[in-house]
This record gives sequence, structure tokens and C-alpha cells, in this order.
Amino acid sequence: MKVNFPWEERPINSSDVIWRYSDNPIIRRNQIASSNSIFNSAVVPFKDGYAGVFRCDNKAVQMNIHSGFSTDGINWEINPEPIVFSPHGNTEVFGDYKYDPRVVFIEDRYWITWCEGHNGPTIGVGYTFDFKEFFQSENAFLPFNRNGVLFPKKIQGKYVMLSRPSDNGHTAFGDIYLSYSPDMKYWGEHKHVMSPTSFKDSAWQCTKVGAGSVPFLTQEGWLMFYHGVITTCNGFRYAMGSVILDKENPHIVRYRTQPYLLTPSTTYEQIGDVANVIFPCASLYDEEKDRVSIYYGAADTVVALAFGRISEIIKYTKENSLK
Amino acid sequence: MKVNFPWEERPINSSDVIWRYSDNPIIRRNQIASSNSIFNSAVVPFKDGYAGVFRCDNKAVQMNIHSGFSTDGINWEINPEPIVFSPHGNTEVFGDYKYDPRVVFIEDRYWITWCEGHNGPTIGVGYTFDFKEFFQSENAFLPFNRNGVLFPKKIQGKYVMLSRPSDNGHTAFGDIYLSYSPDMKYWGEHKHVMSPTSFKDSAWQCTKVGAGSVPFLTQEGWLMFYHGVITTCNGFRYAMGSVILDKENPHIVRYRTQPYLLTPSTTYEQIGDVANVIFPCASLYDEEKDRVSIYYGAADTVVALAFGRISEIIKYTKENSLK
Amino acid sequence: MKVNFPWEERPINSSDVIWRYSDNPIIRRNQIASSNSIFNSAVVPFKDGYAGVFRCDNKAVQMNIHSGFSTDGINWEINPEPIVFSPHGNTEVFGDYKYDPRVVFIEDRYWITWCEGHNGPTIGVGYTFDFKEFFQSENAFLPFNRNGVLFPKKIQGKYVMLSRPSDNGHTAFGDIYLSYSPDMKYWGEHKHVMSPTSFKDSAWQCTKVGAGSVPFLTQEGWLMFYHGVITTCNGFRYAMGSVILDKENPHIVRYRTQPYLLTPSTTYEQIGDVANVIFPCASLYDEEKDRVSIYYGAADTVVALAFGRISEIIKYTKENSLK
Amino acid sequence: MKVNFPWEERPINSSDVIWRYSDNPIIRRNQIASSNSIFNSAVVPFKDGYAGVFRCDNKAVQMNIHSGFSTDGINWEINPEPIVFSPHGNTEVFGDYKYDPRVVFIEDRYWITWCEGHNGPTIGVGYTFDFKEFFQSENAFLPFNRNGVLFPKKIQGKYVMLSRPSDNGHTAFGDIYLSYSPDMKYWGEHKHVMSPTSFKDSAWQCTKVGAGSVPFLTQEGWLMFYHGVITTCNGFRYAMGSVILDKENPHIVRYRTQPYLLTPSTTYEQIGDVANVIFPCASLYDEEKDRVSIYYGAADTVVALAFGRISEIIKYTKENSLK
Amino acid sequence: MKVNFPWEERPINSSDVIWRYSDNPIIRRNQIASSNSIFNSAVVPFKDGYAGVFRCDNKAVQMNIHSGFSTDGINWEINPEPIVFSPHGNTEVFGDYKYDPRVVFIEDRYWITWCEGHNGPTIGVGYTFDFKEFFQSENAFLPFNRNGVLFPKKIQGKYVMLSRPSDNGHTAFGDIYLSYSPDMKYWGEHKHVMSPTSFKDSAWQCTKVGAGSVPFLTQEGWLMFYHGVITTCNGFRYAMGSVILDKENPHIVRYRTQPYLLTPSTTYEQIGDVANVIFPCASLYDEEKDRVSIYYGAADTVVALAFGRISEIIKYTKENSLK
Amino acid sequence: MKVNFPWEERPINSSDVIWRYSDNPIIRRNQIASSNSIFNSAVVPFKDGYAGVFRCDNKAVQMNIHSGFSTDGINWEINPEPIVFSPHGNTEVFGDYKYDPRVVFIEDRYWITWCEGHNGPTIGVGYTFDFKEFFQSENAFLPFNRNGVLFPKKIQGKYVMLSRPSDNGHTAFGDIYLSYSPDMKYWGEHKHVMSPTSFKDSAWQCTKVGAGSVPFLTQEGWLMFYHGVITTCNGFRYAMGSVILDKENPHIVRYRTQPYLLTPSTTYEQIGDVANVIFPCASLYDEEKDRVSIYYGAADTVVALAFGRISEIIKYTKENSLK
Repeated sequence: MKVNFPWEERPINSSDVIWRYSDNPIIRRNQIASSNSIFNSAVVPFKDGYAGVFRCDNKAVQMNIHSGFSTDGINWEINPEPIVFSPHGNTEVFGDYKYDPRVVFIEDRYWITWCEGHNGPTIGVGYTFDFKEFFQSENAFLPFNRNGVLFPKKIQGKYVMLSRPSDNGHTAFGDIYLSYSPDMKYWGEHKHVMSPTSFKDSAWQCTKVGAGSVPFLTQEGWLMFYHGVITTCNGFRYAMGSVILDKENPHIVRYRTQPYLLTPSTTYEQIGDVANVIFPCASLYDEEKDRVSIYYGAADTVVALAFGRISEIIKYTKENSLK
Repeated sequence: MKVNFPWEERPINSSDVIWRYSDNPIIRRNQIASSNSIFNSAVVPFKDGYAGVFRCDNKAVQMNIHSGFSTDGINWEINPEPIVFSPHGNTEVFGDYKYDPRVVFIEDRYWITWCEGHNGPTIGVGYTFDFKEFFQSENAFLPFNRNGVLFPKKIQGKYVMLSRPSDNGHTAFGDIYLSYSPDMKYWGEHKHVMSPTSFKDSAWQCTKVGAGSVPFLTQEGWLMFYHGVITTCNGFRYAMGSVILDKENPHIVRYRTQPYLLTPSTTYEQIGDVANVIFPCASLYDEEKDRVSIYYGAADTVVALAFGRISEIIKYTKENSLK
Repeated sequence: MKVNFPWEERPINSSDVIWRYSDNPIIRRNQIASSNSIFNSAVVPFKDGYAGVFRCDNKAVQMNIHSGFSTDGINWEINPEPIVFSPHGNTEVFGDYKYDPRVVFIEDRYWITWCEGHNGPTIGVGYTFDFKEFFQSENAFLPFNRNGVLFPKKIQGKYVMLSRPSDNGHTAFGDIYLSYSPDMKYWGEHKHVMSPTSFKDSAWQCTKVGAGSVPFLTQEGWLMFYHGVITTCNGFRYAMGSVILDKENPHIVRYRTQPYLLTPSTTYEQIGDVANVIFPCASLYDEEKDRVSIYYGAADTVVALAFGRISEIIKYTKENSLK
Repeated sequence: MKVNFPWEERPINSSDVIWRYSDNPIIRRNQIASSNSIFNSAVVPFKDGYAGVFRCDNKAVQMNIHSGFSTDGINWEINPEPIVFSPHGNTEVFGDYKYDPRVVFIEDRYWITWCEGHNGPTIGVGYTFDFKEFFQSENAFLPFNRNGVLFPKKIQGKYVMLSRPSDNGHTAFGDIYLSYSPDMKYWGEHKHVMSPTSFKDSAWQCTKVGAGSVPFLTQEGWLMFYHGVITTCNGFRYAMGSVILDKENPHIVRYRTQPYLLTPSTTYEQIGDVANVIFPCASLYDEEKDRVSIYYGAADTVVALAFGRISEIIKYTKENSLK
Repeated sequence: MKVNFPWEERPINSSDVIWRYSDNPIIRRNQIASSNSIFNSAVVPFKDGYAGVFRCDNKAVQMNIHSGFSTDGINWEINPEPIVFSPHGNTEVFGDYKYDPRVVFIEDRYWITWCEGHNGPTIGVGYTFDFKEFFQSENAFLPFNRNGVLFPKKIQGKYVMLSRPSDNGHTAFGDIYLSYSPDMKYWGEHKHVMSPTSFKDSAWQCTKVGAGSVPFLTQEGWLMFYHGVITTCNGFRYAMGSVILDKENPHIVRYRTQPYLLTPSTTYEQIGDVANVIFPCASLYDEEKDRVSIYYGAADTVVALAFGRISEIIKYTKENSLK
Repeated sequence: MKVNFPWEERPINSSDVIWRYSDNPIIRRNQIASSNSIFNSAVVPFKDGYAGVFRCDNKAVQMNIHSGFSTDGINWEINPEPIVFSPHGNTEVFGDYKYDPRVVFIEDRYWITWCEGHNGPTIGVGYTFDFKEFFQSENAFLPFNRNGVLFPKKIQGKYVMLSRPSDNGHTAFGDIYLSYSPDMKYWGEHKHVMSPTSFKDSAWQCTKVGAGSVPFLTQEGWLMFYHGVITTCNGFRYAMGSVILDKENPHIVRYRTQPYLLTPSTTYEQIGDVANVIFPCASLYDEEKDRVSIYYGAADTVVALAFGRISEIIKYTKENSLK
């Protein structure tokens, strides 16, 4: 594992399973000159350090994704220009906007998925080998969809993607689905994965849920951080939980946290362009040292970092699982 | 062509491009003992006569699809029991409800598509060789989708399906898309086909549009009847238009009627379980005699029939096309 | 039983459990000079004939209830003036409007319940001994409530009322509850009785349900006709079902029809001030002859009558019961 | 007065203040070849007969206004082409659509007002001397507005217009206002005239009200027919009432009917493109014979005619006036 | 009165009638290990100190109520486990959730009321003698109801409860009602107490109002602190006012503040799980020293404390009363 | 120009076109004893210093406008009593509330416009010569309207006003219009000026836009600061942009910023009675020194100040103009 894994020990006196980085947010809203806000962004180990794909809304509040690099996972150089995608083969690619990227290495390249504006939101797909040249493939699904997250390896010979069918506004519902593809072009075998809970059972995730970080394979199955949403009388509030999906049949939920792991309770999570949002998009794992670092957007304005112990998170998820 | 093609000449004094059958509706709401209503149904030539797949809502208003047969296309025997699908291969298939079927013969079998209840509406897919045994394949798309209509032959070696991404209620928006599949299992290459118009340009289709009958190949391209919807202060009103899609690149609209071809104006279209609905789901063609017969649901209650001359419809669609 | 019980035999060729009176509607919208519409009304055996309480909306569409009398249950003399209530004791009684009455004889008097306008709808309660003098008691519940229906005798020494908690508009939800009172003044021991069904199980009653006719004690329990509502893209549609409640613990549903018994399908039910409404408010029973006559409002405009055999309805309700 | 005043006596046995023409509707939906519907139209005495301005929605449901002529006020020749307006002076005039016209003679010409589509609905204004050539002036008001109705003569030296401020959809509120103009170009001195009533007081007009026919000067003041709207669980229902405005200060309501004068209760009013609509746009008066003929749109589909005695209407309006 | 009454003098330079405790909030969101937030809670003098019932939402955002104790009313020990209620007699009691408790001593015991989840919110009722053992009675009312507050003694021999009929969501309306019960089981004699104001008269309370603290008998009548709500373009904002109810006929409002007494303007009131909420649930009185301490939930996250002089509050309420 | 022009240089290291005053907010929410909040206010040079008209919502959250004076434009004395208007001539003037004032000197007097409550919001108009005596004229427009802003001189001999037609709630749409008046009494020649953008092009202004400061004539045309609104899942967010209107035909937009100039990102803009609001209402210009000072309401709670260089703003607006 990396020498320079982003990490900070749990604060003394804290017994939280997940704790925040003490110098959050790690990326501020105007870190590049043109940006209104940088949030809901994804990172991945790359060479000696890390590469990332960042959601940067510019000062016209146009949404786009930018590449960036870091040696320590905390301090980031973000490209002031958005990623330019070349079409993969003779694919026509175009989008009104791009946001909420995820990134994952599969086999020989880094795949990027994001919310692509194409008569409403759907899942854009692209790849890069080097974070310099980028190629865009066909959109995975028909509109309306958001939060497309790929598994880091093929299962049963096929690519696997989680997503959340939506509508064309501030969708007030949302289940997570899983789909297969033989070729990253055609998708099918759609399986239902998980729904919002009842208000009674776990109100923080009773309006909608969406995939967050790229799933990571553990002994118990695929561990993923996801967001759940509650509707308050002042709008939506987004918090974070964890779920463990079956290794072989990853649409089967083995465990899923009834309590949240992280809820908006610091100033940078409670105030910003959209108050009360924690939105995980990536995680880094150091299995040897039993560490995970979670990157999440805060208040639709900045990027923040939180930490945990893999083994503890698995234990907690099992012990506090929804029935 | 069939000797017994369902047909009636244009009424004297009428200059309408499309005219109604004088003995409409051809299928009444309680034609089978258990039914509340039979509407939005599809037919296809079969052996010496015709076969059909019918939307029958039972008296609990549970939605299902039934097979039926006719020698003349007008008088139908509808099976009192819903179609039972066997899974295709090891596909898991299940649905909370089935409605609004379409049926089309491709290569060696009759494919059926419908709105399948699976955590909300999506496109169910099945097939039969004989209208006795039925097999259900994977759903084509993630929810939420309605009005999946297949082309009657492969294009560029792939199956082609129109559909209308939706939400999980009485969707107040709707564009038609087109998707490709190499195998009827995985779908991709999603193309946008057509949107609702502006209120100013053609108000009858300004809320949403959806594919109707199976496209039919003409000199000018693929001719299809579709529904368009306007939102009045008393709810939705559904009328029917025609569109001609490009032969080779069928997501390209060549002509599309600015005026409707048929709008609710008879009692059986204006009154029923849902007032003011004309919803075409199938058409039969007799090219030799330049005839087309259109089957449409009326007022979400009954099935009705209308007629036209293929050449006149093409001419009208071209001459009255939306800019 | 009455000689002049309102009755008509089942039409030949019909196998319906419930059938309509051939000369419906029995009360027309402007049967009294001031009325815009007369519907959702209740009747009860009285002396040699019948008395009734009628919802008459006047031509300013102000809602009020009127008394009426009939010798045959079909032809009614309705009082052109609304009922004037004297206060019961020193009760303050007042209401902005009155609608949807029910009437039932308990012990020594005829109790009337209705929807009383008092900062929104709630349940008004009154009584009469002779349908000449009327007294109004305290409202049974806090707003917002509708469809208060009393049982025809005390159970466990207490009065029992069904009702449907609502909101202050065209309520889009609604469960039936049951409450007890020792004295017709204070109410408590509220029990949940039944909810709307899922869309999948019985869509005609998936939006809301409300008590209809006064329950009638049979071998199987209390038989009641109720209304169920579905939300279409053009608004609500009201149909009628039956339910059998436990004799001793009447909040327990023993059987409840999955199919409707009657759905709007005649002109007078499908067209009117509010299209597609069947709303039962009363029934008359002739046990000896195994007959029941059901009075229902049609299209919020007129009163209609339907008939059935008690034994058949019980059988049907049991055999077609929701699981 | 005209010899050929459109008229039919009150039916025997009727005591209604307003009665319908026995051969309604007088204009059918497809009276001109291109029309989907003709309704909400205005007429005025012209030469030996009558001229009119008609709302004709074509088969693309584009809204426009057409001229027409009649010798008897009942049988109309409607111009198949919409009115073409030349700009008045160097006024820029343009509109996305035109609907719901009114027409009135003032001093030397016929003024036409209508709902003009200009970034949403507002009040278009034009004039003609001969119903051949038409000129369009500046729009009277900022959006959003509908139902602009001019008084037939200047008051205190100024033009006077009633209108109903709206929003950009199926407005669920609406009060009538009155504005003055010295020159038909600049408008001000806006006065509130009347609001919807409470649900309790006169429910048929509790959602919104809008000016209908051109006011007519009587002994008691300006008599006008207007529409009132109630919101049912199936959408809006439009009925007609009358109001008498003060002669000198016409924003002051002297009398206004609590009951409606006409409510949808015939098939052509209850069924059509929008069910349950009565929408008065014009009236003709024969003072000598104490007659008035009211033209109203029915069900947003056809034009119908109703009659009354001026003196009786005034009497009824006074005796049944809202407090 | 207690030696250890929670109190802090008015800040120098302040002339506010109500002032905040300088060390607010007194209870933090995670004061117990399992809690997401602790707010909207009630306290009562108990033995030498104080007992309380606290709304603790756990980290699954499940709502429940916990007991707690304090010697000074400021520092609280809250039981980490929710209150477990035994049924009173053979009452069936159950609830999906419990929130927003109030507590009051009447005659021989401490009565607790709260919002009980039972097919939507209604008023749960329970009691304790010692804050160790708890008993639950029948729910007072049918759903939907919130903010049930008991008077501290019987009036005319009956228990008296304020409540606010609601709907099943984030209710956008709300009046306060008052009901009587002879036995804490059956409730009736429902009286309307107060409505929201017009936007013009007192906009902070123009959406809804709800009872807050237990009424306290003064010379002028029953003094109560209540919440009022305004709808902004970013959701609801809750502030606090006072009302004085008639001593004998407590549904009669004698005085009610047109201005608020306290509005969200500190960080802990403006930021949290639901921004901009002040929600009073209890108050303590020291008549001798003319002091009142008000406990209120802040931002749906924490509990805060405010102080005032009883005599000044009464004076202010009278002098600034709504007409 | 004034010696005491309110000004502060751009912070070192900042390259922003607009920068905030370091001691913001300049007016706090309770600067006068009765106020809940003071925001959305307008200032103008007056004598040796400045005069202003301030929106002060009192503690009953009643909205009114107050006069104030300042020698330096930063420290203000605000009159604790609202402005009292005398009627201009025999104009009847009255309003339920007044808010969001603008003020401008034209020819011989200071004109004030504001949002006047008169059956919903519309544009109130008044004037003063000395900020002691005030006169109210006729409202400019019919309801519903907001943000009426006058040009500082007549154009083509007529007064010119910008405004934003609205509805009667928290309007979710809004275009800017321009109207002419010969006399400040009658208004006409309504021109459309600018619309919200598409979500894709400039999301911060995609819901609605409204005129802000009084336009100021530059070489390029009339420079104005305006507000734009985006709808987030937690409500509206208001930011500020600039527009340059054609000198002769001021309804023609020459340049308009695609990026915002200022968006809520300080605590006093992000938190308050309505979070995330920047609402410009006035600006002061010192052409000689190339300075502009912008007054804006922050979070519907306080008044803040920002600065810029006129030449830079013009340059930026041109270079970053929406296509």
C-alpha cells in the first residue's frame, strides 16, 4: 500500500466508527479560479500517488468534471480546465452537463461514470489510461438516472454497475439497482438492490438512497458507502451509511446500516450552497493497516474527508443491520 | 394480404384522413366475465386470421394481459385467463402488474412488450411462437419506462426498441427514445427520437408523447402512430398523430404531424374510466389495397378501430409536418 | 318486513352480484326547486314507509341536508327547506355546511351523522324521534374527518362509530377507524379498521376508502358497503365494495372484497358535477326475502339505487376477499 | 332593434331565469375544416345582422381567432382563415397564440380584446371598422392576465377594461380588476372589483371568477355575465353568474348572484375537450322586448346560446345577491 | 419554590421580554451515546429537583422519548434507554414512533402526552408516579394530530387538552383546538381556540400554530407559550409567542402576541437538522420571584433555555395583542 | 462626487470583480427596536450625504418601509417609524404591506417604488422631495408583480420601469419586463427584457430573474445589477449578476453575465431568516474614481455592501456575456 495514505487517528475520547479529518474541508469552493464550488468528487490510487475526478461547478453554475492529482490524497492540484472527452470509436457523445463522477480501475484502464445531461440526467461512461487523454463511450442507460457506480472487477464475466433510476427534477424517490454488461456498451439483467426504508425504521434514509463509493471486496462481501435522504419541512437532508453486498450475487444486500455513519453536523456540512448534505463518492483502502478514507461532498460546496477502520465498519454494519 | 382484412370505407361526405369504424367499440369493457375494462391492446396477423394481446383490468382493477384470436380482426375471442409466462432460460421473471402490450413478429417468433410492474413501471419483454406457450425474457430497461415498441425487423443486425422514460406516477413529461440490442437481453446506444412540442406549436402533444403502433416500413421510412398528451385544467387528454422515422437511422424523425389524426370526440372516447383518451397500440396493413387499420384504446375502457389509406397518411404527414 | 320494499329482480342474462335499478336515477338533480344536485343521501325504514336525509346542494352550491319521506323507497318527497337543528341541551352547535348524511335507528331514536363544516370537515351528530324536530349534539371528533357511520346498536355498552380521518382539501389518503363512546358525547378507544390497498392488489381502492352504509348484522358479522378510490390522470374515481366486520370486535375485518361490486359505468355515474363517482350511503334489508337495496350518490349529482341478495353478497365477499 | 334577434321563448313548465336554446350547440367543433373546436367566442350587432370573433383551435390545437358573420345570430359563417392583424402605427405586435376574444363597439370602431400569448397569457387589443381589416395595438397589461373585457363606452373620459390577473398555468385563483386608459395604450388606476367567494357562501365561484360578456348599461348599473369556478376532485368546473356594477364607479359591485344562473348539465356542457365548462363571452340585448341572448363556450368545444329577460335577470340578481 | 430554579438575569443593555441562557444549548445533540439529536423536550418539578421527558432521535433517526433528571434544571442526566410503557389496564398500546413530549402533574400523577405514530401522527397519552414506571393509556384522538398539551388541573370536573389537528405529512396548516374528557379515555366537546393569522397581520404565525408549554394559571388567565410558523421560499420557520386563555372557558383567547417573543437568530437555532426552528415544550414558574424559564427545541437538534419575568410577559402580551 | 463615498479597496490577493465590505453587514437585523430584520433596501445621494428607504420587518413580521439618513453611506440612522404616505391628489392609496423598495431621483423629486400588498403583490409608487413628506401615487400595474425599478431619467419623453410579473406565492418563474408611462399614472408599451436561462447555460439564474439596482448610464448602455435564482432541493438560492441594456431601447439586452458576480458564501448571506440570499436593491456610483458601491439584502435579514470598479464590471459583463 501507499506510504502516503491519507490518514488521521481517531480523536481521543471518540468512539465513533467514522471520524472526520481535523482539517476539513480538504478542497475549498474556489480552489480553482473559475469555480463556484467543488464537491461530490472521486479519487483513485494512481502511480505513486492519487488521481481524481472532481465536480467543479463554475461561477455560471455550469457543472463539469475536472481531473486532479495528489501525492498524499489530501492536497490536490485540480486542472482548471474541464476534462475533454474524445469519442470512443464512432460513438456520438455529448452532454449538457456532467456531475457527480466516480472512478474505478478495471483490468487495464480507469473507468469514469457520472451524471450526464442528455434530455435530463443519465449515466455517462468514459475511460482513461493516464488521466491525460479521456474517451467517452455510450451512455449506459436511458434517462433518468443518477449515481452510476461500477464494481472494480467483472463478475461472471460481465461489467456490473449500480445506479439509481430518477426523474427529471429533484427526485423525491430512489432505489438502487444493479445492471450487467458484456461489453460496457449494452446493459441488461437489471436487478433491484435496495429501497428507502420506512420512516419508522430508519428515517434518515426514508426518501431515497443512492450508491456512493466504489464497492470494495471484503470477507463479508462488497462494502460500499451510500447516501440516504430524509425529507424535512425545509427540504432534503443527506447522510451516509454502509452496505455489504453479496460477493457472487451483488444485488443481494447482506447487511445495511440502520443508523447512519455520518450526518451533517459540522458547519461545512450544515451550511453551503445546499445545506445539510453529506455525499460520499469515493474511498481508499489500506487493508494491511485496516484503514479506509472516505471522500465526500459537503453541503454541495466542498470536499471533505473521513476515516475509519475496515474491520470496525464491517462489524458495525453487521451488528446494526436493518432487518 | 388477408381476405378478411378488417375494413370499412370512408363515410360519404367525410374528408378525414382517418375515420372510425361505425360499430365501435369493437371490444366492450366486460367482454370477459372478470374484466372491468379491455383497452390499449395489440393485434398481429396470425395464421389465417389474427392474434392479439389484450390489456384486461379485472374487477379488482388489477392489470394483466390476455391472448385472443379473431378471424376477421373485429370479432375477438379473448382468453378469460391471463397469459402465463415461463421464464426464458434461467431468467427470473416476475411483475406486480402488466399493461399496455404491443406485439410484433420478428424472424421466427412473436415478441411481446408491455409495461411491467417491477418497483414501478418498466418494459417487460416476452415471446411466443404460437400464442399458446409464452416465455418471458429480462426486462429491457431500468425503471421507470413505458410504451416499449419493437421494430418489426433488425436494423444493422440489432433489435431496435422505442420507449418513453417516465417516473413512478402519472408522469407529466415524456420523450421517445430508441435503443439497440444485439440479443434482446442487453440494451444500449440510446438515441433521443422526439419530444413534446411547445404549447404554441402543437398543443395536443405538448405534455408528453409515446410510441404507439409497431412501425411499418414505407417508401418514406418507418410509419408509426403515436399518442400525444395535453394537460387541461381537468387532467390529461390523449390524441393520436403519425410520425415517419428514417429507414436507416430510425431515431431521426423525417416527418411528424403537427395536427392530430384522431382526438377524443365520440362518446366512447370522451367517457369511461379515464375520460378523453385515444391510445393507439397496433395497426394492420394491406399494402396492396392501400389500407391500414388502427387499434386504439378509448377512455381507458374499450378497444376501438379506425381506418385510413396508407398513401394518404404519408402524404398528410409530410404536408402537415412540424418544422 | 315492509310490503313496499324497493326491489327489482336481477336482469335476465345478468350474473352480477349487484344490479342497478332500471329507472335510475331515482332522485334527479333539481328535484326540489332550489337544488343544484341531490346525492350521497341516507334512508331508513320509518313508520309504514321510509324516511331519509338528503344532501341537497343548492344553486349557490351551498351544502345542506334535508329530510324526506317515501312510501315505496323509490319515489321521494324531499323537504324544500334544510333541516333546522335545535341544540341538544346547552351544546353550542354551528356549522359552515353539512353534507353526506347517514341515518340509523338506535334504541329510541334516529341518529344522524354527517360531514360538518367547522374549520374544515368533521363529524356532526344529531338525532330525531319523528323527522320533524331535530337536535344537534357535539361534534364527535376534531377536524378533519369525514364519513362518520354509526353502528345500529351499542356494542359492549357503548356507541360505535366508523370514520375516516382526512385533511382539509380533496384528501388523497384515507383509512377507516372505529371509535367508542359511552354517551354520544365523548369518544375514545380509537381502533384502526382498514386501509387502502396497494395499487397492485386492488387498484380501485388504492387511494382511500371510507365507510358507506350503516353496518347490518349477519351470521358472518357486520356487513357494510364502502367506497374505494383510485387516482387516475384525470382525478379520483369512486367505486363500491363490501366488507364484513367482526361481530364482537367490529374493528376487525373478516372479509373485504378485492373486486368492486359496482363501478361507474352508466351515464349518470360517469357524467355529472364530478364524473365517475359511486358513493353508497345507505342500504335497506329484507332478511326474510334475502334482499338488500343500496342507495348511492352518482357523479355527485343524483341518487341511484342498486339491489342484491344478502346471501350472495356474503358469499361473494368471502370468496373474493383480500388476503 | 333587429328584426332577426336570436330568440326562443322560455320552455313551458320552466321557471328558470336563463334557459338554453333548444338546438344547442349553435356552432359545432368542426364547423370549419381545420378546426378541432370552436368555443368561447364573441358576437356584436353589425349592419343588418351580426359579426363575431371566434376562438377556433385548429387540429394542432393551436389557438387563434377568426371572424364570422350571421344574419340571425344563430347560423354563422366563420372565416376558415384566422384574422390577420396589421400593426396600429409602429406598434410591434406579435403573439404565440390568441384565444377567448371579446368584441365591443366604442364610438367609431369595433374593439377586440383577447388572451394574447406573449411570454405567457396577457391581454391583446385590436380594432376593426368593418371586420375585414384588423389592426393590433399594444397589449394592455403585463403578463399574466386573461379575460380582458372593455366597457362599451368611455367613463369619465377614459376607456375602461375589466381583467383577471393570472399566472402562467391553469391558474387556481383569480379576482376581477378594472383599469382605465386615456388612449387605449397606457393603462392605470387599477381597481379591485370582485373576488372568489368562500366555499361556504357560494362554492360554485370559490376558486376564481372572470369577466364574461361586455357590460350592458341598465337602470341598476352595468349588467355583466361572468364565470365562476369551483375545484372538484376531478378538476375545475365553470358556471355562469351575473353581476351589476355601479354606473359611475364601475369597480363597485352593487349586486352579484350567489346562485349560478347556468351550470353544466347538458351533454354538450358536461362532455368535450374539457368537461363541465360554461364560459360566457358575449350577449345581445333587445331592450324594447326585454330580451337578452347569451353566447357561451361549452366544454371548451362548442358555442351555445341561452336566453333571458333583462328585467327578470336584474330582479334575480338583486334578490339573490351575495351579502 | 425551588432553591435551584434555573435562572439567569436579563443581560445588561437588553430590553427584551425574553432572553436566552448564555450557555445554550443546555442539551447537545449527542448527549447520550445513541442520539442523533435531543430537542422538543419537557420538564417538570420533581422531588427536590426536576424530571423531564426528552425527545431523542437515535442515529437511525428513529424517534423516541426518554426520561431524565436534574437538580438544577440545566444539567440533565438522560436515560440512554427509551421509556418503556406498560399498558394501562387492558389497553392495547403500540406506536411506530414517539416524539415531542409534554409532561404535567395533575392531582396524583404526572401525565405525559406526545405525538404517537399510529397510521400517522396522533396524540399518545401516558402517566407515571415516579418517572420509573410508566403506563400508556388510549390515544386521545383519531389521527392526524400533533402537539397535545394538557392543562395542569381539571376544569369543570374534566380533563382538558389542547391539540392541533394535522395531516400525515409536513402539515402546511394548523389551528389549535381544545377538548374535554371526563376520564382521560373518551374525549369530546371540541372547541376551536386559535388559527394562524393573516400574512398581513402577523406573518411569523401565518402558516400554522401549535400549543407549546403547559398552560400556567395567572391573574389574567392561562398563560401558554406556543409556536407559530411562516412559510418562506426555503421552507418553514418556527418562532415563539405567548397567549392568555380564559380561566373558565379556556378555549377563549383573551390576549395573543402579534409580535413573536423569540425567533431563530442564534447559530444553534438557525443551523441544525432543520434550520430556523424554535419550538417551546415546557416552562417552569417561580411566582414568588416573578420568573419563568422556557425550554425549547432549537433547529430540531438541541434543547435551549430562555428566561422572562411573568409579570412582564403578561403585560407585553396584553399590550401587543392581536386584534 | 461625494467626499464621503462609501468605499474600501479590493483585498490584496483578490482578483474578484466585486468584493465585500470587510465590516459587513452594515445594518443589523434589530438596528431599530421594533425590527425583526432590515434588508433589501435602497439608498440615494441626498444633500451632503445619503438618504435611504429601508425594508424593516417588525417583530410581528409585518413588512414596511422606513426612511433613513447617513453621512458616509455606511452608518445609517433609520427612522423607527414607517413612512407615512399622503395620497397624491385624490388617489386612493392603501396597501396590506410594503417591501423591497427602490429609490431614484428623476427631474425634481425622488421616486420610490416597492412591492405593495394589494390583493397580492404589485408595484407601489410614491415620491418625496425631502424624505420628510411622502406622497403615494397609483399602483403602476395590476397584481401580481414585484421588483419595480425606475430608470433615472425619461426616455423618449416617458418614464420607464422594469418589473417582474409574478404570482401570488413564492413565484417559481420570473422574467423582467419594461413598461413606459407618459405621466407616472398610466402604463403601457410593455416590452419583454430578459428571461431565466436554461439550467445548462447558467444554472444560478435558471428559475427567475428580477431587476435590482437603478440602472446607471454608461458608455455601453444602462448598467444594472440584478438577482438570479436557482431552485435547489432545499429551496431557492439568490445570487447577483449584471446586465447592460441598450441606451435608446432599454428593453434590449446588450450584455448579461453568464457567471454571477456575487453568490451567498459568507455566514451573513448563508444563514438568516431565509438562507442563501443576495438581493441587490441599490448602487452608488463615483464615475470620476471609477467606483461603484452595491447595497444588497443578505439572507432576508441584514443589509450588506460590496464594491467594484465600473470599468472592470463593464468589461467583465461584456467578456462573460450569455450568448
